Amino acid sequence: MDKQLSTSRIEKDLENLKAFTATPGNGCTRMPFTKETRDAAEYLKQVMREAGLEVHEDSVGNVLGILPGKDREKPCILMGSHYDSVYNGGDYDGIAGIVCGIEIARILKDAGENLDCDLVIAAFMDEEGCRFGTGYFGSKSLLGQMTVEECKHFTDKDNISVYQAMTDYGLVPENIPNAAWDLDRIGRYIELHIEQGPVLDQKHIELGLVDCIVGIQRYMITVNGRSDHAGTTPMDMRLDAVDMASKVICHIADLARAEEEGTVATVGYITSVPGGMNVVAQSASFSVDIRSKKNEIINKIADEIRRLLDEETKKGGGTYEIDTKLVITPVDMSAPMLDIMEDSCKEHGYTYLRMPSGAGHDALAIGQIKDTVMIFVPSKDGRSHCPEEYTPYEDFAKAVEVLCDLVRKVD
Amino acid sequence: MDKQLSTSRIEKDLENLKAFTATPGNGCTRMPFTKETRDAAEYLKQVMREAGLEVHEDSVGNVLGILPGKDREKPCILMGSHYDSVYNGGDYDGIAGIVCGIEIARILKDAGENLDCDLVIAAFMDEEGCRFGTGYFGSKSLLGQMTVEECKHFTDKDNISVYQAMTDYGLVPENIPNAAWDLDRIGRYIELHIEQGPVLDQKHIELGLVDCIVGIQRYMITVNGRSDHAGTTPMDMRLDAVDMASKVICHIADLARAEEEGTVATVGYITSVPGGMNVVAQSASFSVDIRSKKNEIINKIADEIRRLLDEETKKGGGTYEIDTKLVITPVDMSAPMLDIMEDSCKEHGYTYLRMPSGAGHDALAIGQIKDTVMIFVPSKDGRSHCPEEYTPYEDFAKAVEVLCDLVRKVD
Repeated sequence: MDKQLSTSRIEKDLENLKAFTATPGNGCTRMPFTKETRDAAEYLKQVMREAGLEVHEDSVGNVLGILPGKDREKPCILMGSHYDSVYNGGDYDGIAGIVCGIEIARILKDAGENLDCDLVIAAFMDEEGCRFGTGYFGSKSLLGQMTVEECKHFTDKDNISVYQAMTDYGLVPENIPNAAWDLDRIGRYIELHIEQGPVLDQKHIELGLVDCIVGIQRYMITVNGRSDHAGTTPMDMRLDAVDMASKVICHIADLARAEEEGTVATVGYITSVPGGMNVVAQSASFSVDIRSKKNEIINKIADEIRRLLDEETKKGGGTYEIDTKLVITPVDMSAPMLDIMEDSCKEHGYTYLRMPSGAGHDALAIGQIKDTVMIFVPSKDGRSHCPEEYTPYEDFAKAVEVLCDLVRKVD
Repeated sequence: MDKQLSTSRIEKDLENLKAFTATPGNGCTRMPFTKETRDAAEYLKQVMREAGLEVHEDSVGNVLGILPGKDREKPCILMGSHYDSVYNGGDYDGIAGIVCGIEIARILKDAGENLDCDLVIAAFMDEEGCRFGTGYFGSKSLLGQMTVEECKHFTDKDNISVYQAMTDYGLVPENIPNAAWDLDRIGRYIELHIEQGPVLDQKHIELGLVDCIVGIQRYMITVNGRSDHAGTTPMDMRLDAVDMASKVICHIADLARAEEEGTVATVGYITSVPGGMNVVAQSASFSVDIRSKKNEIINKIADEIRRLLDEETKKGGGTYEIDTKLVITPVDMSAPMLDIMEDSCKEHGYTYLRMPSGAGHDALAIGQIKDTVMIFVPSKDGRSHCPEEYTPYEDFAKAVEVLCDLVRKVD
């Protein structure tokens, strides 16, 4: 393939797509079912048509571009990513995987290479879940895992439901089931994404071959003590929620450090109630996010946190509550597809690293039931979900080259 | 004295004063320079007049009732407390010390007991400092420690300055210096206050003889790390502000527990930035409030916290900032007056405990320069600064009995 040509075409599309943000000059804000997703969808459809694909927008706002194969009954190769963003996010997260997918279809089409099966480039709606607190909306709809009831349940900060937002967008929520595919139609799923972490950039490695999407358990924990005057209550008569909570939290990162690479644990949110400088805290709430390639490691850390909470709260008669926010088991990526990508990297002389994905992706939803693989391109300084997010366009072209090989070989 | 009569008169005044709140049915909210302080001041003046005192409101809103002594040139006995409250506070904090002071003057007057010196009952304006973030406003003004410039500097949540609030209240801020006394006029200061802590109530002790008002050092500390994706950033590549901060905070209460009785240390406020469940915290801010009877103990704990901050932040290249909010050195109460009160308790058969005051009071400001003593009455369950604050009226009468003895003996 002509890597320079691919780089320039990827650049053109990603530069054009930068315009579709609600926060110009301050990163990409492309919330689902807004003018920005509409504009991006129309742009993608236009580019897909120019690439010679059959273009279709489904009943939930997924945009699909199909390069027809010789045998259209054969399970397809599905490839893509999402075209929504977080608030003030970057210009590559998600959308780059779609643009590169279109580029792969373009290369194959232009070379007159007819695949046996359909190659379907999917631009998924609402993977991030930022607006409604959902996530994987588009890919889950395609898998038949989304219901009209759920759409009524989830609302944004202005109390607009997914249902209402879809209606305002011109979609008919009752038609959500129409977005579901016969799952036999999907042969495998391939996703290109920016790493969103510092590993490839720091180690100067060109491509990441994702061997696993880590499992996640996420909790909101509240430790309950008793509110007292911070001056007049002797130490042996108080039940200090921050004191108890900190004696648990101080171990949480270390629990992950003690486990194998790819295991992380994070307390990103913490607050105390009532929060006065001169008031012993009645309660302290904090989030815990644990991720690992191995589910038993996640469970082990979660169990140890529960043990620490028992120990620290029971000393003085405190209590705690755990609100489970998220439980996702790790998903192994397709070993045969990883081997093909590894061979391809060697052939082209690209440095590569087999690595886990610490973040969820549409590949997490689809990988639960279909052979799936992901390829990562480096994120400068590991930055993502911010306006500074950056990957050089030629890096995307390298991944496109490897994925072209992969598509040909799995066809 | 007729303790039953005193109890009923104290009850009547405190019950009547409950009406002067901005939050009826939800505790006492009597902010400085509002309709509620005006109404309370007028009530107190009326009661003082009925008790036969010379009544005067000074240029900052302090209400003063004087029982004239035989030798009016002799330094007076100043006795009182404050008549403002916190938001949704209790009906006894501050105001009970004024009501009991008036009761003492009433008892002496009714018995025809003429003191040698003036007995001045002071109702101080704005001790709590809740509205403007100040504190000890009335007592400091009386001591000549308040300036017009400061009144322009401090503002409430609606951006109204003390200066503006005073003007709206009908006072002339430029006259603040007129509130200052010739300090030689003050012989000693006596304050009755609810304990605001659980010690007397839990130990079933009738009266607290305050031997020291603890020193306070208060800090806001910010630990700075780096914001990263909680899923994609390996543990050895992150600089987690909550992890670092918690490894300091978990020791703070224990540092106080290791010191002598009366030493306390509290982290009442904590927050993380940006605070996302899936984002490694860029910074974590928390308050530290340290109190002790001994200044060297406070300094020792503050130094150890700094050492821990150094240790934990320097491991990974983090930083921290300390914003000093308050530094008050401990103030010893008058030993001779304590001995007199102790004798009086023994004589009347009241159980008592010499104890520190863990909270600041007008006695803290005045005690820096004048012989001062405080007496505490029990707070049910140690509750204060809340609508549940409660002390039986007969408990106040016991303290009044002891203070009557004290006033007579120091005259």
